[in-house]
Amino acid sequence: MIIMRKGASEAEIMNVVGDLKKHGLSADISTGEIRTVIGIIGDETRVSTTHLETLPGVKEVRLVETPYKLINREYSGLFDGKTESRVVKVGKVRIGTGDPVFMAGPCAIESREQLMTIAECVKAAGADVLRGGVFKPRTSVHSFQGLGSSDQGAREALGWLKEAGEKYDMPVITEIRGEAQVSLVAEYADILQIGSRNMYNQDLLIKAARTGKPVLLKRHFGASIEEFLSFAEYIAASGNKDIILCERGIVPVGRGKSFTRYTLDLQAAPVVQKETYLPIIVDPSHAAGRRDLIMTMSLSAIAAGASGLEIEVHNNAKEARCDGQQMITSGELGYLIEACKTLNQNLIPVRKTALADRCLS
Amino acid sequence: MIIMRKGASEAEIMNVVGDLKKHGLSADISTGEIRTVIGIIGDETRVSTTHLETLPGVKEVRLVETPYKLINREYSGLFDGKTESRVVKVGKVRIGTGDPVFMAGPCAIESREQLMTIAECVKAAGADVLRGGVFKPRTSVHSFQGLGSSDQGAREALGWLKEAGEKYDMPVITEIRGEAQVSLVAEYADILQIGSRNMYNQDLLIKAARTGKPVLLKRHFGASIEEFLSFAEYIAASGNKDIILCERGIVPVGRGKSFTRYTLDLQAAPVVQKETYLPIIVDPSHAAGRRDLIMTMSLSAIAAGASGLEIEVHNNAKEARCDGQQMITSGELGYLIEACKTLNQNLIPVRKTALADRCLS
Amino acid sequence: MIIMRKGASEAEIMNVVGDLKKHGLSADISTGEIRTVIGIIGDETRVSTTHLETLPGVKEVRLVETPYKLINREYSGLFDGKTESRVVKVGKVRIGTGDPVFMAGPCAIESREQLMTIAECVKAAGADVLRGGVFKPRTSVHSFQGLGSSDQGAREALGWLKEAGEKYDMPVITEIRGEAQVSLVAEYADILQIGSRNMYNQDLLIKAARTGKPVLLKRHFGASIEEFLSFAEYIAASGNKDIILCERGIVPVGRGKSFTRYTLDLQAAPVVQKETYLPIIVDPSHAAGRRDLIMTMSLSAIAAGASGLEIEVHNNAKEARCDGQQMITSGELGYLIEACKTLNQNLIPVRKTALADRCLS
Amino acid sequence: MIIMRKGASEAEIMNVVGDLKKHGLSADISTGEIRTVIGIIGDETRVSTTHLETLPGVKEVRLVETPYKLINREYSGLFDGKTESRVVKVGKVRIGTGDPVFMAGPCAIESREQLMTIAECVKAAGADVLRGGVFKPRTSVHSFQGLGSSDQGAREALGWLKEAGEKYDMPVITEIRGEAQVSLVAEYADILQIGSRNMYNQDLLIKAARTGKPVLLKRHFGASIEEFLSFAEYIAASGNKDIILCERGIVPVGRGKSFTRYTLDLQAAPVVQKETYLPIIVDPSHAAGRRDLIMTMSLSAIAAGASGLEIEVHNNAKEARCDGQQMITSGELGYLIEACKTLNQNLIPVRKTALADRCLS
Repeated sequence: MIIMRKGASEAEIMNVVGDLKKHGLSADISTGEIRTVIGIIGDETRVSTTHLETLPGVKEVRLVETPYKLINREYSGLFDGKTESRVVKVGKVRIGTGDPVFMAGPCAIESREQLMTIAECVKAAGADVLRGGVFKPRTSVHSFQGLGSSDQGAREALGWLKEAGEKYDMPVITEIRGEAQVSLVAEYADILQIGSRNMYNQDLLIKAARTGKPVLLKRHFGASIEEFLSFAEYIAASGNKDIILCERGIVPVGRGKSFTRYTLDLQAAPVVQKETYLPIIVDPSHAAGRRDLIMTMSLSAIAAGASGLEIEVHNNAKEARCDGQQMITSGELGYLIEACKTLNQNLIPVRKTALADRCLS
Repeated sequence: MIIMRKGASEAEIMNVVGDLKKHGLSADISTGEIRTVIGIIGDETRVSTTHLETLPGVKEVRLVETPYKLINREYSGLFDGKTESRVVKVGKVRIGTGDPVFMAGPCAIESREQLMTIAECVKAAGADVLRGGVFKPRTSVHSFQGLGSSDQGAREALGWLKEAGEKYDMPVITEIRGEAQVSLVAEYADILQIGSRNMYNQDLLIKAARTGKPVLLKRHFGASIEEFLSFAEYIAASGNKDIILCERGIVPVGRGKSFTRYTLDLQAAPVVQKETYLPIIVDPSHAAGRRDLIMTMSLSAIAAGASGLEIEVHNNAKEARCDGQQMITSGELGYLIEACKTLNQNLIPVRKTALADRCLS
Repeated sequence: MIIMRKGASEAEIMNVVGDLKKHGLSADISTGEIRTVIGIIGDETRVSTTHLETLPGVKEVRLVETPYKLINREYSGLFDGKTESRVVKVGKVRIGTGDPVFMAGPCAIESREQLMTIAECVKAAGADVLRGGVFKPRTSVHSFQGLGSSDQGAREALGWLKEAGEKYDMPVITEIRGEAQVSLVAEYADILQIGSRNMYNQDLLIKAARTGKPVLLKRHFGASIEEFLSFAEYIAASGNKDIILCERGIVPVGRGKSFTRYTLDLQAAPVVQKETYLPIIVDPSHAAGRRDLIMTMSLSAIAAGASGLEIEVHNNAKEARCDGQQMITSGELGYLIEACKTLNQNLIPVRKTALADRCLS
Repeated sequence: MIIMRKGASEAEIMNVVGDLKKHGLSADISTGEIRTVIGIIGDETRVSTTHLETLPGVKEVRLVETPYKLINREYSGLFDGKTESRVVKVGKVRIGTGDPVFMAGPCAIESREQLMTIAECVKAAGADVLRGGVFKPRTSVHSFQGLGSSDQGAREALGWLKEAGEKYDMPVITEIRGEAQVSLVAEYADILQIGSRNMYNQDLLIKAARTGKPVLLKRHFGASIEEFLSFAEYIAASGNKDIILCERGIVPVGRGKSFTRYTLDLQAAPVVQKETYLPIIVDPSHAAGRRDLIMTMSLSAIAAGASGLEIEVHNNAKEARCDGQQMITSGELGYLIEACKTLNQNLIPVRKTALADRCLS
């Protein structure tokens, strides 16, 4: 990171950027209340620190040892003098404030009617964002892959999603599974979701980032937190910091039954919040893979400080074409949202107290 | 399981037990409000179901497919007509009621003075049970192994623990690391702890169980929940159902930094409570391995329904001879206990509501 | 799988395909020496077995329980009356015969000169296929991403690769990291490599498969063998059975140093060969991540029955821009290839012996 | 490690040992061709390097950063001027020379007759050491636990084992599962086996080590190599360096079928041989859990440089009371041993060649 002097001129800043370019590097320019900081994108060893410090307007060059620099909480502290969390804005929804956000809807969009019914219900239940899958990533090529399997189906389903979002006044989120879907989905969706299986797919991340839409990145079920953040950095390095991270479970350990599809790593919530300024939400539906744990683990996630939840809802789980065993009803969702909001309110004073702060930070 | 008719006579019961013995099997006899049920200990295939059903007094023989039968929630339902959780009683402390229990103290007992000071403080902070390690399991033979390294040190340290427990009116818990320590520790401690590394040590489990003292069994960091319960079954099969399970974190996934020592699997709490009638507590200290996550993850564990917490406390963490980086102070503990109790109180109505019940069970 | 009667007519076959289409399913038609078998692509539950068996020319409908049907060794047995392994042909090279094939070259193409030098050397050392990376998947956006980072760089580097392959008479293989690169790479390369991180990227797999070029699919470092084969099935279901599987290591277990980057799962070789008719090769370079294990593990892989090896070679490992610590020299490669070939020759009689056969199959 | 001057006197050596004792540390004294080296057992930070270097006769104090010091290959180099592998001697058998050693026999001893028959057969097949389980570690308390379940059964079965070993002139190996069995087993067995589940059981390791008998330590299925070596160090620190390490498979990754019980980590063989001077053997039976992979993986293990194999053999696998699906017959064993020996002979020149040496070291 290149920390510019207070009041460094536009010309000085551009001179540094040009210098980086000559060394095959790009720049991330962040101007805050205090000063401008230029993050180096690419292999820093191509340019010498000493050289950079001789450039006009440069105050200091500081090396960040992590593979995630632009999303690092320290980085934002440099130009703003504070290390506040980033609030991702989507329509009227704010993700990353102290209030949890609830994203809900069916795993897969099956028909216009199904989606409209569920949308109305989850809105009534208190959901903030409507989710619905069009392009379903599946382990078996022989399983239902979502209505996006045909071009026409994709446009139709995305159209319904947009329509439902507008009708019930909720931003909508859906997964992009491949690069070819990015521009199409960006026409319809308010948040682009990158699923767990694609976390390591850097080309998709870059393409999604460049749409300028907020990107929700799910942690791969075999990825360490460091890898998770390293790939989120690909989005930031593509000029898009409206990143929402999502913990959705990692592979269970040991031999024998695990009783859940994945192990939910709730420590990821406080860890990510300490390492970066990005919000992190939790998806208890995919982690548990069974509806009877959703309520309990939602409360647990909120207590761990998650900025929101993504939950699969179906009004007729038995007929769901995908993941029926983990869906809750919209009635259950309403109760869940209320309980989570109350829990979160009760925890605000706990989190604020000095002693807690010491413990928490 | 052999379900006896209501009013089956003592002679009929003993006849069944004798018959099992002839087949090389043992019996677990549970007499409840409704009837007597005899659990078969050993390989059931040695005796035919049809044969057992001809014995006088036998109503029905039901096979349980899990490797944990005696701790199975279903099993307790058979003789009591209800599938209530077991409450483990230790002095005045009750583990497994709706109210969480707090076990706290130093990782390792270092001196009488250190222990007495911490004991006084954790009692004041609201702890229910005093913990303190005498026999420390360590990855390196070259690390401090606890005062139990010498016979004299072991007796002394155990004596201090008992003394501190009596003085501050708390039952005490300490780890038994090897079989040779079982009878000694049972003289002094109220709860025998089996550490994570010894979860698979069936000979130790059996020996600990036979003391009749409550046993706290920690999940191995590489064990599935099914394996965890299978080894808890060794304790029950040795005639001791005063078992407290403890989730303390599993090995992290992926390559790169995990930021915590272990991954805390909080889904284990509701899963274990559904599968068995045993209480499960959570140890956030060993899972996180860093003190700044303890408060948050304690709240999260209570929200997940844990029956209690085991927390490492030191009044001078920097001088702790073991695991100093994960210790909190007793001041912090007091705040933590209060916050957890309040959180739990707030969640009681949520857990009771019909809708929640459907979600939760 | 729909097994047609011997001598079923083209019209009967097409009638079955049309019927499947009406149910939203596609077909994989395999005509062998004995008969024609039609593999169903998609969710079989959409059509009833009883219905299919009434169609003219249909002998039998057999359900395959695995998520990989078209690559299943059983499947190929049905139409050919034998379950021989598939030999993938690339130019004069044959992959999947009893003789191991050696793919070698630099991790990343750095310059025309570098590539030409290494190509000449690995050819002299006995390599069959030339490898060289243009699009490098990297954990950190700040690391060198290969010459493919710019459009011009990509075309240039691919051109050199093709040129080197032609000059030294070796087919060439390179990785496609994103969908946007598929058609470009297919113009230049003889085998399309899908890296470990993209194993779950079904859209990329389908796009690569449709080029008709042989596809080398590397196992994800967190994937079970069943998942590995399920994703290989995506390639087959896209009409391309020229699939080469590659074991390159999975994430190590436990806490503490693992001494290698990944754990090489050599049991994967015999397992894949039993489950499918596809060849599987081994990449010891990425698994070990250190050059001093390459020789030993190459021998071990050949002894496990691998159909070949992919090895990173650099003539000046210290200056390699990527993974230098795991590169061997072409001199070492020559010795390695010779030793592996000799070992393989020596094992042929062992594998042929009746007793071994019983052990091996 | 305290490196003494050449010709340091006995008194000087004892003075250093006494000094360590005053600091609460023990000593491992190794006198080789060149000089005496004293390994510090315990926490080195208790004593200052500077202080030690002032003691008479001390040449140099060198800190070893690994948690395994006494088994470190570097350590043995210091006093012998060479870093040769240790050869563990058991009767006429030598483990750790260039020639692989074969340990074979039934998973569990079931009767005298069964054992005698198998012993005769495996001897004829070329086995060097007879294995047979008396105390079986099992996941379920309800499974067959071996004849060692009763005191009388234990003595009887151990007696048969000794008898069979004497009759057929093979040293015998059997597992000690708990501390209470150590002295009994040491009366009968030539090598004491510590099973995978007990790798972390430091008290058992110490007790086994102190018998002075060679100890075979199996890697835990969730342990990193560093942890494996750290626990082997417990044996060495208890005064016993006749340690045979054994790789027997680690837990598989990912979701879905793995097709083998465990993942065999053959890189462990060369890694352990580089890090320590101890021999490492491989157990393909438990890793695969299916007999049709045993032959292939045995060859692969020998190619990886394993010092031997431990293989389960049963003449009537279908009636085996434990692990029948992974047993091979003694006829198959004979073929396997012959093939492995031939393979090993063929690899000797490969391993000796200078170029290979560079690759291998």
